Amino acid sequence: MKTVQQQLTQFLAHITQVPPLDVALADASGCILAADVIARSAVPPTALAACDGYAVRAKDVEGARPTAPAVLPVAHVITNALADPIRLVDFQAIKVSSGAALPIGADTIIPLADTDRGTVRVAITDSRRRGQHILPAGADMHEGDIALRAGTRLGARQLALAAGLGYPRITVHPRPRVVVVPVGDELVPPGSPHHGIYDANGPALRTAIQDVGAVAIQVAPLPDTPSALTEAIEDQMVRADLIVTTGGLSEGENDTLKDVLLHLGDVRFDHIAMQPGRNQGFGMLKVQGFTGDEADHVPVYALPGAPAAAHVAFEVFVRPALRAMAGYSELYRPALTATTTTSWRSPHGIRQFLPAHVTGTPDGGYEVTPVGDPEHLDNLTLSLVASANALAVVPEDMTDVATGASLPCLILED
Amino acid sequence: MKTVQQQLTQFLAHITQVPPLDVALADASGCILAADVIARSAVPPTALAACDGYAVRAKDVEGARPTAPAVLPVAHVITNALADPIRLVDFQAIKVSSGAALPIGADTIIPLADTDRGTVRVAITDSRRRGQHILPAGADMHEGDIALRAGTRLGARQLALAAGLGYPRITVHPRPRVVVVPVGDELVPPGSPHHGIYDANGPALRTAIQDVGAVAIQVAPLPDTPSALTEAIEDQMVRADLIVTTGGLSEGENDTLKDVLLHLGDVRFDHIAMQPGRNQGFGMLKVQGFTGDEADHVPVYALPGAPAAAHVAFEVFVRPALRAMAGYSELYRPALTATTTTSWRSPHGIRQFLPAHVTGTPDGGYEVTPVGDPEHLDNLTLSLVASANALAVVPEDMTDVATGASLPCLILED
Repeated sequence: MKTVQQQLTQFLAHITQVPPLDVALADASGCILAADVIARSAVPPTALAACDGYAVRAKDVEGARPTAPAVLPVAHVITNALADPIRLVDFQAIKVSSGAALPIGADTIIPLADTDRGTVRVAITDSRRRGQHILPAGADMHEGDIALRAGTRLGARQLALAAGLGYPRITVHPRPRVVVVPVGDELVPPGSPHHGIYDANGPALRTAIQDVGAVAIQVAPLPDTPSALTEAIEDQMVRADLIVTTGGLSEGENDTLKDVLLHLGDVRFDHIAMQPGRNQGFGMLKVQGFTGDEADHVPVYALPGAPAAAHVAFEVFVRPALRAMAGYSELYRPALTATTTTSWRSPHGIRQFLPAHVTGTPDGGYEVTPVGDPEHLDNLTLSLVASANALAVVPEDMTDVATGASLPCLILED
Repeated sequence: MKTVQQQLTQFLAHITQVPPLDVALADASGCILAADVIARSAVPPTALAACDGYAVRAKDVEGARPTAPAVLPVAHVITNALADPIRLVDFQAIKVSSGAALPIGADTIIPLADTDRGTVRVAITDSRRRGQHILPAGADMHEGDIALRAGTRLGARQLALAAGLGYPRITVHPRPRVVVVPVGDELVPPGSPHHGIYDANGPALRTAIQDVGAVAIQVAPLPDTPSALTEAIEDQMVRADLIVTTGGLSEGENDTLKDVLLHLGDVRFDHIAMQPGRNQGFGMLKVQGFTGDEADHVPVYALPGAPAAAHVAFEVFVRPALRAMAGYSELYRPALTATTTTSWRSPHGIRQFLPAHVTGTPDGGYEVTPVGDPEHLDNLTLSLVASANALAVVPEDMTDVATGASLPCLILED
């Protein structure tokens, strides 16, 4: 049997980042930046008023206070933030909006609140120090400064910065495209009038893939027959960055899926020292180019068919791979330590990932209770898994999990 | 001036949940369930084998052990999970896959690992207790059981359950549609060849809205002229659950946006006792029906134009409203307490929301450092805001923030 760590390391060795692509800002949301974003000019390009008020020379209003205001004529009102800077004459004031270019000769903005808001003449009731409420040219960035570094995740505030610098497009690792292939003669889509077992893994994996920020392409459940499987997988390979199959690996079944994948590329199947989800496989499938002599490769991961096992194996192996493809450096979910409210025996040499319910607070600590019976993982039904909010991890060398034992728990975001 | 709490309470009073809608599972991902999901039949409908192995009667293999295996003829191999249950004859075994219907008369599944995996005759080397590895009919749910309760967020595992129950569609609060209207004569879209200030709020708000799980409809920046604003907002009202404007509220500017919104409905503008983002407004706009005598209402929120202030006001007022519209009961981001690494003076009676950098761990505690100078919030440039990962909150009555003071911090997910 292979350890979880061996399986993860070997699978991740087949994974590469999706090649950088220039995309519109609207398509970059949530992606990882693949090239530094540089300020193409100073920001701001000229000194700006940083609040609504009156541009003055500090020395003209020195000592102004409520009982002895400095009164200046208002020479101009700048209503257009784009107007070229105008010149301030000594002992005058120019009314400005926040963001307007600082009038030439002005060195201070007096906020509206420290004035009588006059339009012809303004009484200034508070004198401020020179430079107040002015954003100097280049205060934010100089030309050539790195505004955003490659590797940054592009959320709202990072995209605001790129937009503010004038970039309509940006170079990112685009979202990986993942094709989901549920396999099983017995599977029918939810709502199908045909006799069968409703495919739960397809819809679940589609959402789990989207939650990582990737694009899911869900294929209708496929029968466990070589021609149908081969045709569907070959069809999908050309548009996939990763193919994920689920089912078709039970030892009681025929080995159709294994045979098909082995025929399409270099794939291995192993028993993994974990519960649930003992039977899994991965490898590289060969994509034949249109000319026949080119060959490209698409990684594939074969998940178990039992929904709880498929969910766990996706979390443990496929999710980190999708994060790596998308350009993240941190591949794993945050873990916290919780004490168990119950006890059970865990098989020696096996790492358990138990759907569980975690409660608690950072200050008060956390408690964890597995959903269902950890000694009978066959009972991990869809409703039990749906009620969990975490995966409790029992290390390989822990066989007696005592009540109160500390276990690392992976918190599932939803 | 109004307090932050007054503004929030008054705005949320105008907000209602988006009416429930029946959607395909693929469109329900991340939505809040609006009606209980009921099991329409027992799950599983009949007893199932819960692992790959041999179905037997426990009394036929009693006492089997490696030195004295029980050897039974293999009467049948069930390869089709959908086949009707067949009858097990005494002192025989039937090979089954996990998920197959339990043969009539069988009460135990012997896992493959406890056998010689024989195909004609099987030697069973371990006897187990009755009922082992069998999932009884109704073990997961009985007909009429509530599988998922209204109010549940539909992540991967919840959708797996709905799919497994056979539901192709599900009743949810659909994603709110939010129209973003940046206002300002000086604004041009990023990449525009025209002279102007690049619109940073449009792209930022689009992403922030999507991050809440809502649908963003971004309008190109609009000039501050009554006809253009009125036309654009009236056009968008029919497809919006919420309209968000940004800009056009500076006191130095003319009051075009205020006048337009006041003309279109019942809207109020106030000074809010917060930094950044003093000038904000909200209300209800009237949508005229096609017949002329129907009237519907769309809520509107008017955000400040300065990017840092727009970001903060979105977080404080609009994000909770979007969560409420989407059916969430918990409207607010998780907060943690961090100690400050620096000191500053905060105005009395004003609640500060300072873009800040939080570091630390649950065990070691957290430290917070505002980005930029909290006494000069005019300096909150796009690059400073983009480098933050939290908003530090200074309460209204705290005027001297000492180094080491404890502040609540809202963690920004990205």
